[in-house]
Amino acid sequence: MSQAITLIESSLHKHQEIAQKIIERSLPYSGKSIRIGITGVPGVGKSTFIESFGLYLSSLGKKIAVLAIDPSSERSGGSILGDKTRMGSLSADPNAFIRPSPAGGTLGGVARKTRETIILCEAAGFDTIIIETVGVGQSETAVHSMVDFFVLLMLAGAGDELQGIKRGIMEMADLIAINKADGSNMERVMLAKAEFQNALHLFPPSPSGWDPKVVTCSARNNTGIAEIWDNIMSYREKCNRNNYFELRRNQQSRYWMYESINDQLKRIFYHNHAIQKRAANLEKDVLAGKKSSFMAAEELMKMYIRNLKKQA
Amino acid sequence: MSQAITLIESSLHKHQEIAQKIIERSLPYSGKSIRIGITGVPGVGKSTFIESFGLYLSSLGKKIAVLAIDPSSERSGGSILGDKTRMGSLSADPNAFIRPSPAGGTLGGVARKTRETIILCEAAGFDTIIIETVGVGQSETAVHSMVDFFVLLMLAGAGDELQGIKRGIMEMADLIAINKADGSNMERVMLAKAEFQNALHLFPPSPSGWDPKVVTCSARNNTGIAEIWDNIMSYREKCNRNNYFELRRNQQSRYWMYESINDQLKRIFYHNHAIQKRAANLEKDVLAGKKSSFMAAEELMKMYIRNLKKQA
Repeated sequence: MSQAITLIESSLHKHQEIAQKIIERSLPYSGKSIRIGITGVPGVGKSTFIESFGLYLSSLGKKIAVLAIDPSSERSGGSILGDKTRMGSLSADPNAFIRPSPAGGTLGGVARKTRETIILCEAAGFDTIIIETVGVGQSETAVHSMVDFFVLLMLAGAGDELQGIKRGIMEMADLIAINKADGSNMERVMLAKAEFQNALHLFPPSPSGWDPKVVTCSARNNTGIAEIWDNIMSYREKCNRNNYFELRRNQQSRYWMYESINDQLKRIFYHNHAIQKRAANLEKDVLAGKKSSFMAAEELMKMYIRNLKKQA
Repeated sequence: MSQAITLIESSLHKHQEIAQKIIERSLPYSGKSIRIGITGVPGVGKSTFIESFGLYLSSLGKKIAVLAIDPSSERSGGSILGDKTRMGSLSADPNAFIRPSPAGGTLGGVARKTRETIILCEAAGFDTIIIETVGVGQSETAVHSMVDFFVLLMLAGAGDELQGIKRGIMEMADLIAINKADGSNMERVMLAKAEFQNALHLFPPSPSGWDPKVVTCSARNNTGIAEIWDNIMSYREKCNRNNYFELRRNQQSRYWMYESINDQLKRIFYHNHAIQKRAANLEKDVLAGKKSSFMAAEELMKMYIRNLKKQA
């Protein structure tokens, strides 16, 4: 499986062709897992949490694949999951498979590779897919668009500024887990829990019909982990019953199909050197108030269409 | 000015050419207003609020233009602002200009027309631009991308479900105004105020450095209206000082330039009948699990490029 993923991640045309064939053949065997997204800023204890959570799932007989999306990652150290030793026990577990984020490239590219890797992992028999990301950028939206359930890890006592979590991410969460609920931290944790519950209460209802939950846990002490899994199972049951589970997966497939087209349309457009240069100049005119945004766009489009005709 | 706006809203090529020339000439005189977005679900009292707010601004010597974005609107009645009699006193005020939403078309098209109309209004000397939208769809994002300050109108006692306000909209608000703060409603209003303040407190800080405020008002009794304007003035002062005001306007100009390009790239792509037909079929394959989203996208792109070459 690792080799197949390497083919998915390769930028060589020959590798991509083989990879696409493997994915095509894996498709009929995919889709039967539960896909869980996990986010939270650095320092919240994501690795420790995933290790504790993964080992618990393994003890239930689950087969767990841990993937990651980190567009800024470089394969050489430092990135999230780049170092398997951070999840030593889980990576030694025969029921678990851990794969670092695909390196480099745009978010769209990294997301695509991860989504394809999910298909492979599912076809290989993994029934629980965990996708980790850092809660500081746009990668949450990408992860949210490929998982069934989204967990936001938080810390107590940092509620005033949400610890750098980007706007909009809290609204994506199906469950907020306040980590490091242990020792002298407990009082602050319970306070934070009440605060988050109040805040979630003010959000409009999710189309899933699921009320996002706030729980506490200690990844280090292995407490609260089972409750999180129970919540995910309740969610799955509820959303299977009201058909939201399948509806959402279909929406996601459609989303990635059109997202991918839009990405490529843009890539073709901006790939053109003359367009790039003209765009930079037009942007200056727009910022100086010499041209309206729409006139600038129109000029660029006219140039693009002229170029297409010349090329062909 | 009404005639110039009609040219902007026209779909005739000849009219568009004249409109673009007028906008181009207006540009140097534009940009000096404060642009205020106002949203809230039907029933919250938007028209009454805008009338009360507008008359107050007029009493301060301001010149107010009220525009609207409602992609679903039809020019024939029923739409927001479609009926000026709903703002009878304001529309009779010589300092005010009220224009209903451009009719029909896509959100992108409607937004473009409104953004161009802002330029016209500013060049014509209006110093306060109010843009109204209904808080139930994607139009808030469009309005948010063309205003300096975003007001969310709410009602008390409906906090449990946010009255149908879409997820994410609360995070855009610079100010939440709880309307109908009068009579026997006051107790519930104060409760709602505390709740919203708590919730806003949990959001990450806005890049403007401005802490979103929660205020109460009664549009019918004209109370709380001055406080809202004072808040907007404080915001402007703060954001002029930290340069966020100009930064945000520049970001918006850039956003609309590239948004417009991306819109047009998609329009050219999906305008093709053969592409449309093939896309529908590929979507079926994707939903049936026969093709991955990315393979489907690739097939469609290959077909598009072949077509481009044939056409030219």
